[in-house]
Amino acid sequence: MLDVKLIGLGSFLPGESITNEKMEEIFGLRQDWIDTMIGTKTRYFACDLDEKVFKFELVDVCTRAAEKALENSGLSAEQIDFVVMSTATPDHLMPATVNLVVDRLGMNNVPTFEIQAGCSGALQGLEVAYRFLQSGAFKNGLVIGGDVMNKYLDFSRDFKKIRSSELINLALFGDGAGAVVMSNDAEKSGIKIEQIVTRFEGLGREPGQVMNWFGTIVDSSMKDSKGKRIQSAKEDYKAIEAHVPAMAGEMMDELLTKTGWSKEDVSYYMPPQLGGIMTDKICTYLELAEGKALNCVAETGNNGNALPYIQLSMLAERMQSGETAVGVAIESSKWLKTGIALRKE
Amino acid sequence: MLDVKLIGLGSFLPGESITNEKMEEIFGLRQDWIDTMIGTKTRYFACDLDEKVFKFELVDVCTRAAEKALENSGLSAEQIDFVVMSTATPDHLMPATVNLVVDRLGMNNVPTFEIQAGCSGALQGLEVAYRFLQSGAFKNGLVIGGDVMNKYLDFSRDFKKIRSSELINLALFGDGAGAVVMSNDAEKSGIKIEQIVTRFEGLGREPGQVMNWFGTIVDSSMKDSKGKRIQSAKEDYKAIEAHVPAMAGEMMDELLTKTGWSKEDVSYYMPPQLGGIMTDKICTYLELAEGKALNCVAETGNNGNALPYIQLSMLAERMQSGETAVGVAIESSKWLKTGIALRKE
Repeated sequence: MLDVKLIGLGSFLPGESITNEKMEEIFGLRQDWIDTMIGTKTRYFACDLDEKVFKFELVDVCTRAAEKALENSGLSAEQIDFVVMSTATPDHLMPATVNLVVDRLGMNNVPTFEIQAGCSGALQGLEVAYRFLQSGAFKNGLVIGGDVMNKYLDFSRDFKKIRSSELINLALFGDGAGAVVMSNDAEKSGIKIEQIVTRFEGLGREPGQVMNWFGTIVDSSMKDSKGKRIQSAKEDYKAIEAHVPAMAGEMMDELLTKTGWSKEDVSYYMPPQLGGIMTDKICTYLELAEGKALNCVAETGNNGNALPYIQLSMLAERMQSGETAVGVAIESSKWLKTGIALRKE
Repeated sequence: MLDVKLIGLGSFLPGESITNEKMEEIFGLRQDWIDTMIGTKTRYFACDLDEKVFKFELVDVCTRAAEKALENSGLSAEQIDFVVMSTATPDHLMPATVNLVVDRLGMNNVPTFEIQAGCSGALQGLEVAYRFLQSGAFKNGLVIGGDVMNKYLDFSRDFKKIRSSELINLALFGDGAGAVVMSNDAEKSGIKIEQIVTRFEGLGREPGQVMNWFGTIVDSSMKDSKGKRIQSAKEDYKAIEAHVPAMAGEMMDELLTKTGWSKEDVSYYMPPQLGGIMTDKICTYLELAEGKALNCVAETGNNGNALPYIQLSMLAERMQSGETAVGVAIESSKWLKTGIALRKE
């Protein structure tokens, strides 16, 4: 089987960073509460909260990230043999957004695939591309991950009356995209994938997160057929807090076993990034050595399928020849854990 | 690279078949019009039109199809190393429905992937599984495709007043699921995949089909933020009629070139299946020899990601040692063509 490398990374965060001060101004969500309970300081939204307009769809942020990844890889769009994209928040059910992105990139006659997933999606997309390249069927692949959750905010709603469960999500989540060009070309230098793993382990367990999609919620009092008030996302934060650190630890152990590395052999860790406080807890739980963790969620918000690419971009900037990295993403929806082990040659 | 075979197929169609007589009774859509213009005689819906209840979600139909494929493969769920599923109509955005299916199947610690796609999805799922198995990273995979489009019919609507564009979709589309167990185990007998291809070719072209998702359309007069009446699916049938036959021909030619087979070498064809009339037109356009085409749409309706599995099930029942087959699926959303070439050893 062929070696597969990451040869160019890119990411894109829409609009201006939204501070907790701004969150209090717009949504009446106290900034000291966000600081203390969530620990996320800024995030990026696809809509402009002052102008009350939607500025970016998923296709927009993903195209920008893909353009940067291509530029950083030194390859042109014509040299890409397939495109894989992952998201939880597609612009439509059909066409898959990946097809709108490749159209924008000016590509044609190219195999495209879109993975529907939450926080595990970025690594699932990388795994699909990895297997495609490992098999030798293709030479270069473009892999994209992105989410635009704030595409359907109803600006006619009184934001000060939004329920606290919705407010928590507004503070936690953000929008954005990331991308990477991968290659099995032995001539190319980059970061080599040593291991990549996806594991469903939700057998018999209730989902920790469910996201439905209603498009624009025209009227905030809109009810479903059972008379329940419609809310697109629901989380069981108690279950998430209880399970995510342990699942992250298990995946990290599995990667260390598979690579034969000790914890000391690992130069950088990319831990799961639910929110600032939670990420700190996970780093403590995993006993990660000071300065080894690449965290971004406090600045970017949890932007789902984009986030691991932002960690990989941080990694690509720092990583020296011979260094190693281990990354983990956990999806609490129906309990998936994913992991990646990397080494720079 | 390893050989990959289909070793067990299954499919599931929900409820009773719905005749054109029934369509006229419920929706006021004249049966002679359906016969003449669409040519689909029966279809299956996830809801019961008489009892006005929803009986099946996507997870239900996909689980049934997967159980049958497992049974026909002779493998148990524990012997499956990964699961890939494709759909245009997931039960939720998160968790991906594949995770609900594997939960029902009693599987755990298994990699799961869900492809978001329309009519090209079944073959895209097969391609992902094929590359996974070709690389030798896994031994046995379960691949599922399904769609439940009639999950959100509003029974409080006056069906006799539904617009004709919606009525056409009700007559054309159906619900269902299919599945296959694939293996690179040289000891197993089955149908070998010789070639599999996915091609986006929508560069600069308007989508021929767009599907949005609004969950339950609570009120049929519901409008979007721009004041437009909400309709989840929109098709450009003129563009579809103009492009699909030619795209099918191109994909068939590509598969014949790649396999080195002549048209006479092909024992069975599995052409695209939009509707009965359209499928007949495509068979004529492609000059397929009498009796070689495996068509099911007139009986099943166009059930999207399920349909190629139903054709493969028909193939598996007939195919003799040494025989060959070529299948094509076209997605008009943003113009994808997919194809598969098979041979029984």
